[in-house]
Amino acid sequence: MSLDAALLAIDRACASGAVVRELERREAYARDESETTPVVPEAVIHARSAREVSAILRACHEHRVPITPRAGGTGRVGGAVPVPGGLVLALEGMADLRGVEADDLRVVVQPGMILGDLHAAVEAEGLFYGPDPNSLASCRIGGNLACNAGGPRAFRYGVTRDWVLGMEVVTADGTILRVGKPTAKGVTGYDLASLIVGSEGTLAVITEATLRLVPRPEAVATLLVFLPDARTLGQAITATLRARVMPRCLEFLDSFALDVLRPRMGLDVPTEAGAMLLVEVDGDEADLDGLVDRVGSTMLGAGALDVLIAKSGPERERLWSARREMSYTMRAQARFKLSEDVVVPRSRIADLLATCAELSERHGVRVMTYGHAGDGNLHVNLLWDDPDDRPRVDAAIRGLFERTIALGGTLSGEHGIGVLKAPYLPIEQPAPLIALQERIKEVFDPRGILNPGKIFPTAARRFHGGC
Amino acid sequence: MSLDAALLAIDRACASGAVVRELERREAYARDESETTPVVPEAVIHARSAREVSAILRACHEHRVPITPRAGGTGRVGGAVPVPGGLVLALEGMADLRGVEADDLRVVVQPGMILGDLHAAVEAEGLFYGPDPNSLASCRIGGNLACNAGGPRAFRYGVTRDWVLGMEVVTADGTILRVGKPTAKGVTGYDLASLIVGSEGTLAVITEATLRLVPRPEAVATLLVFLPDARTLGQAITATLRARVMPRCLEFLDSFALDVLRPRMGLDVPTEAGAMLLVEVDGDEADLDGLVDRVGSTMLGAGALDVLIAKSGPERERLWSARREMSYTMRAQARFKLSEDVVVPRSRIADLLATCAELSERHGVRVMTYGHAGDGNLHVNLLWDDPDDRPRVDAAIRGLFERTIALGGTLSGEHGIGVLKAPYLPIEQPAPLIALQERIKEVFDPRGILNPGKIFPTAARRFHGGC
Repeated sequence: MSLDAALLAIDRACASGAVVRELERREAYARDESETTPVVPEAVIHARSAREVSAILRACHEHRVPITPRAGGTGRVGGAVPVPGGLVLALEGMADLRGVEADDLRVVVQPGMILGDLHAAVEAEGLFYGPDPNSLASCRIGGNLACNAGGPRAFRYGVTRDWVLGMEVVTADGTILRVGKPTAKGVTGYDLASLIVGSEGTLAVITEATLRLVPRPEAVATLLVFLPDARTLGQAITATLRARVMPRCLEFLDSFALDVLRPRMGLDVPTEAGAMLLVEVDGDEADLDGLVDRVGSTMLGAGALDVLIAKSGPERERLWSARREMSYTMRAQARFKLSEDVVVPRSRIADLLATCAELSERHGVRVMTYGHAGDGNLHVNLLWDDPDDRPRVDAAIRGLFERTIALGGTLSGEHGIGVLKAPYLPIEQPAPLIALQERIKEVFDPRGILNPGKIFPTAARRFHGGC
Repeated sequence: MSLDAALLAIDRACASGAVVRELERREAYARDESETTPVVPEAVIHARSAREVSAILRACHEHRVPITPRAGGTGRVGGAVPVPGGLVLALEGMADLRGVEADDLRVVVQPGMILGDLHAAVEAEGLFYGPDPNSLASCRIGGNLACNAGGPRAFRYGVTRDWVLGMEVVTADGTILRVGKPTAKGVTGYDLASLIVGSEGTLAVITEATLRLVPRPEAVATLLVFLPDARTLGQAITATLRARVMPRCLEFLDSFALDVLRPRMGLDVPTEAGAMLLVEVDGDEADLDGLVDRVGSTMLGAGALDVLIAKSGPERERLWSARREMSYTMRAQARFKLSEDVVVPRSRIADLLATCAELSERHGVRVMTYGHAGDGNLHVNLLWDDPDDRPRVDAAIRGLFERTIALGGTLSGEHGIGVLKAPYLPIEQPAPLIALQERIKEVFDPRGILNPGKIFPTAARRFHGGC
């Protein structure tokens, strides 16, 4: 059998204990943090080096065995869920920090490193790495790279792709390549690093990354801005940009999300507040008060009810831990939850929020919205308790996606397409564009062994069925 | 004949006068701003719309006629030089600014727009577009995108790719596609926009781009820092970063370049200065003096001889016009000049400068170095008068490239590979990496009609011979 032959070759090439076949240990790799139907892999392979990853992929390529790379498994669209009959390539054991190079403003890391640990390591050297998805305490760099993770600070500091200089990757046939460049600039050949970042593990396995750093901002302040309603949001953002301020974060909560978070913030939230913005600015200590005043007065001028300021570490920490737990807090509000992460141009946020209200009413589904308003990237959460309501939820999601595209937006700002959004890809992308990407996939992975069933609708249907 | 058939089809599909066959007018499209051997195209096609570009490419694809897209023709490596028997697709007639969308911090432009005009248009609205190659008065957006142009401000603001949201492109068979996304964030499918940016016209023709903007910094100041020698440069840069300052520019001139520029600057340059740094900081008016003081004292602490400050517009303009003309000024220093743009990690700049001195001595070629020191991206200029010296120049260039790669660098920071650097690509990239890129090229352009002979050594030899 080809699976057995592949596993034999892998077992020979890897350190002892790399191949895990016990059902109980395999089950832990059957799902990510999404509603994707779990699939238990035939085996989990724990890789320790690029050389081992190369041998593992070569065996899978030779014997045509599907394999799904997995770092932290915190994804929201099923990108790390294996396919029936396939393997999981677990990368959490490759978690070394290879070195912070302060004078070159860069850091070299392995894919299994937890993002929060990377933040701590570079900040200890007076440096800063931008991306900060809310799962930063558990998500790992490999997954951040595979999904081009964002986070609240993306408004000022960009997403993961913006921080990648170069990577060591392994393609489906086991070839180890260095893509990108180790320097601040470089235009030699095609930008394969940017192509592989965000490809959700379908083009290559990332075994090392050289990431860009900047000097750590000296000081940070957080402002909570209470708005009368969601309609005021657009005015508040526009006014901030017109005041030439680029906050590091501009996070939004609608009235439903605010109600959920209210008891956890330990703050006096005005009862008449119908929406909240969490604004964070950073810079030199000497400049920060001026910046905070400017944002505060701009927000009040744009119609805010009240502005609270948190400058101390503990105050900021309490606000952020409430915000970072938002997804989990919300999950506790109903038996079932689906979280989308659509993006629209900033000027269309009000239209998107109106759409959410309209879809909620029309389909009878609770909708709560929060997210990265500065980027126009909103997490639209659909909540329901009765399993029979699922078709209504699906109708609301389709309506949300269609309206998002009509507003000039995109299906996903940071979660990716994975399994769950693959059926909707054609709403955004025409057939020739999807076909072009499938041909690129074939160049990297001619036998289709590398994380099959993700992104592309036909493949998703074939490997993950009705998901 | 296939060329005639293609031209007939193109003539039918395009506006009257689009196809230019007069020798005199064709000759203007035979070269770019490099030493690449000129090639006069069989015809120049002036496109006016994406629909026309589609028809032109479809005809070339059908009849297997090579075609080279060209915007401003200011490239430095022959990327816009056509191949014998081929056409030039001239895009300077598609130069519309489609709209500055201030609330969405973006602008939509056609490829023929001159970069300096784009700067002026967005700055008039209080906005800012980062990339600023020194040819900004004549280079066009299409070429900036094709080559992923940088410029002095890249140190703080990044390169062209960092400013691209989405593009309309036409692939070799005439298919019009939208790649990237019009929003601030988006992870739907593969990042084809980043792949096409920097691909030097070999994957697709860009017919429209949506570019990211930021609020325009309120104030800018320029500091001239005179250093005793090039060795002090590394210390000065490291000290600046340790002081948590990210200048928008950190431009370097070695003693030879400084001698050339000295009479043009209208400033008292200390006679003992052996190198110069042009440092530019920007920010809020209120914060700028503090920032300037911080940079100045940091530089003096790191061994600078003197620091001059230019805050007024005219003072800054005089310095910059001298700096922007550097390449032309230098060309006047000798009969022949070749300008390379290698990049090394910042920490290896001193090693690279030592290499330049050593190669100059060993091969008897004058070498002058200046460039974007903050990014480790230096323009190494080789100057000579006797045509018979060319083999010595080539030996020096090969030595420079080999040493650059050994230092952990890359062959090109912003010029690209084009024709001139294609023979050296294997110094940096192993055969499987080059082959992978050639297979991607085939996906976009299966008949090899789109700007053949660029980037890849085999293709360059075939189409451009011994260049």
